[in-house]
Amino acid sequence: MIHAHQTAPTQFVYVAGIPFAYRRFGKPGGVPLVFNIHFTGTMDHWDPAVTDGFAKDREVILFDNAGISASSGEVPTSIEEMAADAAAFVKALGLTEVDVLGFSLGGLIAQTLAIAEPKLVRRVVLVGTGPRSGEGMATLTPEAQEIFGATYEEPDHLWLRVHFSPSEQSQAAGREFLRRFRLRHEGRDPQVSEKVAPAQLEALGKWGAPRENPYDYLKKLTQPTLIVNGGADVIIYTVNSFILQQNIPNAQLILYPDANHGALYQYPELFVRHVSMFLEHQARGA
Amino acid sequence: MIHAHQTAPTQFVYVAGIPFAYRRFGKPGGVPLVFNIHFTGTMDHWDPAVTDGFAKDREVILFDNAGISASSGEVPTSIEEMAADAAAFVKALGLTEVDVLGFSLGGLIAQTLAIAEPKLVRRVVLVGTGPRSGEGMATLTPEAQEIFGATYEEPDHLWLRVHFSPSEQSQAAGREFLRRFRLRHEGRDPQVSEKVAPAQLEALGKWGAPRENPYDYLKKLTQPTLIVNGGADVIIYTVNSFILQQNIPNAQLILYPDANHGALYQYPELFVRHVSMFLEHQARGA
Repeated sequence: MIHAHQTAPTQFVYVAGIPFAYRRFGKPGGVPLVFNIHFTGTMDHWDPAVTDGFAKDREVILFDNAGISASSGEVPTSIEEMAADAAAFVKALGLTEVDVLGFSLGGLIAQTLAIAEPKLVRRVVLVGTGPRSGEGMATLTPEAQEIFGATYEEPDHLWLRVHFSPSEQSQAAGREFLRRFRLRHEGRDPQVSEKVAPAQLEALGKWGAPRENPYDYLKKLTQPTLIVNGGADVIIYTVNSFILQQNIPNAQLILYPDANHGALYQYPELFVRHVSMFLEHQARGA
Repeated sequence: MIHAHQTAPTQFVYVAGIPFAYRRFGKPGGVPLVFNIHFTGTMDHWDPAVTDGFAKDREVILFDNAGISASSGEVPTSIEEMAADAAAFVKALGLTEVDVLGFSLGGLIAQTLAIAEPKLVRRVVLVGTGPRSGEGMATLTPEAQEIFGATYEEPDHLWLRVHFSPSEQSQAAGREFLRRFRLRHEGRDPQVSEKVAPAQLEALGKWGAPRENPYDYLKKLTQPTLIVNGGADVIIYTVNSFILQQNIPNAQLILYPDANHGALYQYPELFVRHVSMFLEHQARGA
């Protein structure tokens, strides 16, 4: 049976003795696409319209990194350690070549993983993310502090403000997204523990801290890379996506209109088409 | 007979008594795509891989604006007058709705035309261009001055440096482009007169001059807009494409890797696919 986002069972693989939770579904036979989720996110925070959209043509792998939700272990306090955990997870599955997609915090992990593992990672998709010492990344942005600090009628409504712009059209897309991401009823991931956010915040702080020539490291990201963001991201400012494009040697950039941090959830079909084009025919010739 | 880039005859339509030269080909029945060319360019400066790529699915209209090549009249010394000439040309063809693509100087005309004619222009594609008073647009950039001032073994080789990056891969793409754009042997456009460049430079100077709140006018560009450029444009700096995206209300941005001013000629197939997706399914919902 070919599974999909709603039905794929949570499986476990041991990485240095620690069980990592993952779900794997879609069309097998090609290079799988490994998803790296955002701050405090689990496998259930992905949009089925995105994951199932990709699963039509390729294998999709979602996972909880060390210490998150259904995975055991501890959340490390640096992006480098998170990327090493992600690499160990991919290798534990017996895979030798993957494409990597990272969203926000997951995009920091994805770029670090791609640099550390140039043979393991074929192509890279960075969504709503930024470089080391990016603009407004030394701390959470003022907007992010307000949005994450507020209380919501339903906890999920947080994501309407994190991922979507204030416009009526974007908020309507946000409500559709919430409806989709609540669809999985059985086998949902457990809530993340109270230890996740502080460790991830510490890692974000180290990543964002000012340093000399902060973007030099991006020259080492030599894989074909696609950067995607909303044109009005208030969580990781959109200019950081432009900075990534300007500093990664083989990078394409796509920005969507009237979209905040979660552009991939606002335009899931367009996003899947753009990313699929990139994964199939990288812009620069083979 | 359905014509293509190489065979479409040059036709003429009278605009206020002045004959405008144009070529019209492709699949009729939908909204035609009207092309606005760059500094000193004619209908022959378009890439057949781009124009014929679009012509499979839609009607393509190339033209020489007033005073250029096969068209009579005078080249005006402002972008606003050039846009008014372009609007008059489109209306003289009896068309009531078009999509508009503008490249470089043609992109200045296209955005001005879209603002002036919100009913006539449905969607806008801006390639290798920038806003009024854009970064480095008060004069030609130092790179552009050097490139346009140099002499070349064959005059066409100018375009290898204007449109393509210095990398081996980009230069190879440039030679392929030159081969394609020389293919039309019969009915080529005449050389532009020596009056074209000075008038266009004067218009560029007015457009690029510093002014207060220079980007406010872009709020009036309400049509869905796609902005495309190379990530390393030295003729109109790439950051201007980012500025356009940030200031046009409903704008998508795509930047290509290792590409200079002529990204559409370096990645013609990808460009046609991206633009066609945009023209068919604008990013923001209907």
